[in-house]
Amino acid sequence: MKLLRYGPPGHEQPGILLGTQAYGLPTFGHDYDEAFFANDGLACLADFVQANANTLPLLAPHERLGPPVARPSKIICIGLNYADHARETNATPPTEPIIFLKSTTALVGPNDAIVIPRNSVKTDWEVELAVVIGKKASYVTEAEAPAYIAGYTLHNDVSEREFQLERGGTWDKGKGCDTFAPLGPWLVTPDELGDVNDLRLWLKVNGQLMQDGTTANLIFRVPFLISYISQFMTLLPGDIISTGTPAGVGLGFNPPVYLKSGDAVELGIDGLGSARQAVQAYAAS
Amino acid sequence: MKLLRYGPPGHEQPGILLGTQAYGLPTFGHDYDEAFFANDGLACLADFVQANANTLPLLAPHERLGPPVARPSKIICIGLNYADHARETNATPPTEPIIFLKSTTALVGPNDAIVIPRNSVKTDWEVELAVVIGKKASYVTEAEAPAYIAGYTLHNDVSEREFQLERGGTWDKGKGCDTFAPLGPWLVTPDELGDVNDLRLWLKVNGQLMQDGTTANLIFRVPFLISYISQFMTLLPGDIISTGTPAGVGLGFNPPVYLKSGDAVELGIDGLGSARQAVQAYAAS
Repeated sequence: MKLLRYGPPGHEQPGILLGTQAYGLPTFGHDYDEAFFANDGLACLADFVQANANTLPLLAPHERLGPPVARPSKIICIGLNYADHARETNATPPTEPIIFLKSTTALVGPNDAIVIPRNSVKTDWEVELAVVIGKKASYVTEAEAPAYIAGYTLHNDVSEREFQLERGGTWDKGKGCDTFAPLGPWLVTPDELGDVNDLRLWLKVNGQLMQDGTTANLIFRVPFLISYISQFMTLLPGDIISTGTPAGVGLGFNPPVYLKSGDAVELGIDGLGSARQAVQAYAAS
Repeated sequence: MKLLRYGPPGHEQPGILLGTQAYGLPTFGHDYDEAFFANDGLACLADFVQANANTLPLLAPHERLGPPVARPSKIICIGLNYADHARETNATPPTEPIIFLKSTTALVGPNDAIVIPRNSVKTDWEVELAVVIGKKASYVTEAEAPAYIAGYTLHNDVSEREFQLERGGTWDKGKGCDTFAPLGPWLVTPDELGDVNDLRLWLKVNGQLMQDGTTANLIFRVPFLISYISQFMTLLPGDIISTGTPAGVGLGFNPPVYLKSGDAVELGIDGLGSARQAVQAYAAS
């Protein structure tokens, strides 16, 4: 299945993609949140869609999409998980996963604007494969890990490099700004995706291809990451793990290239769809 | 007011401390969560308590307390915010706040057990003054910041030093383990606390005083911290900021001293009460 959420920010409704057409599920009664995943929601959804396939309302073509998962307890990101990206940032590829947390207030829909924070001059892009956790995971083994996956989605791990690297302390300061986690368009269940270790992922800025990688080059693969993180904290249903970005971020250019108001970022992963984010300067509301 | 939550983990009910006696609020109808703080819940609670003061049920003396705030969107911690603690860890006092995020799955009640993670040999303690945010805060000034405070509470920022410092990546890996955020006993509103910059905070292990500091020595004070963090991410009602720990942590001893199964940690802050946590080894459930 391909799950989506639509409607105004903070008031999204559940929906589903069937073929190439998006449908609403106004009578399903459950948002795609922690309780949904914890209570076998994916199986209930499959039954509901089968029983109601002929009466689901089509979504309008320009309906806004929200993130395909309602606010999770946490977003855990993996740093430097592609060797080519580690090299471009002059870092040594890690011997065990680097983890950091991204504030969940950063979550937005896949086609929402990226807002450059006040006083930011180094806002950067990172196309990433994100994993959504399907059930509570603590001290799971790598072999057990696939059973804890609800699905996969597309994530732009937007990053402010000055905040992240030059302002003292941990990376979290440059990773959790508002709008820095565009997620979606869809949550795709593993049975629909095929080989998660053979997906092309790409990102363009103003039409120019900046990142063009493959998940075949992940240093640490998804089951290992789930097992690893679960040694340090419990993963809850709906939690998101973003698995790292391949080469081609703005920081890796000489001189570096960063986003500015008016830019357009497009990104995609095989089987997970694509997204487009307009870049805006911050304006007090 | 002094707000508390009581009952089994995950099923806490709201309560209140009046004088030295804890009462339940079974008919109040609101947990102390994001929606409560966002919708002027503190004023509603004050009215409710005044109207029902004579009929509130007493809590049993040994009722378990939960964290005084229901799961927030995030826990933001400040690193090295007391000069004596920076010195004991051989760090330079920061020129601007160090921020990191603590997984909200680490939250437990003030007198719950601290569970030493599997494969941990460096689990440490940190008594801290924590601030609870009362309303959504983005780009607020230091002068505006006090209006965004719901109250204060006691936090043990439990930390695994090997995970934090020796396993690659950010501090988050050693800060968010399950049970690593005992919070409470109470959320105390600012009007009841007096001068937040003149509070003694202390921590004992097995009866021995290990930390004995004062918030007068905070490098960055609460309004500055709220303003600072709000430049990097939006703070939501109920979010927690933990302001850092004074000297006396296990890492600062020569050789270092860490927690082991059977230890008892007691801690307290003037006006915010005290807490006691038994230390246990991890046991698969």
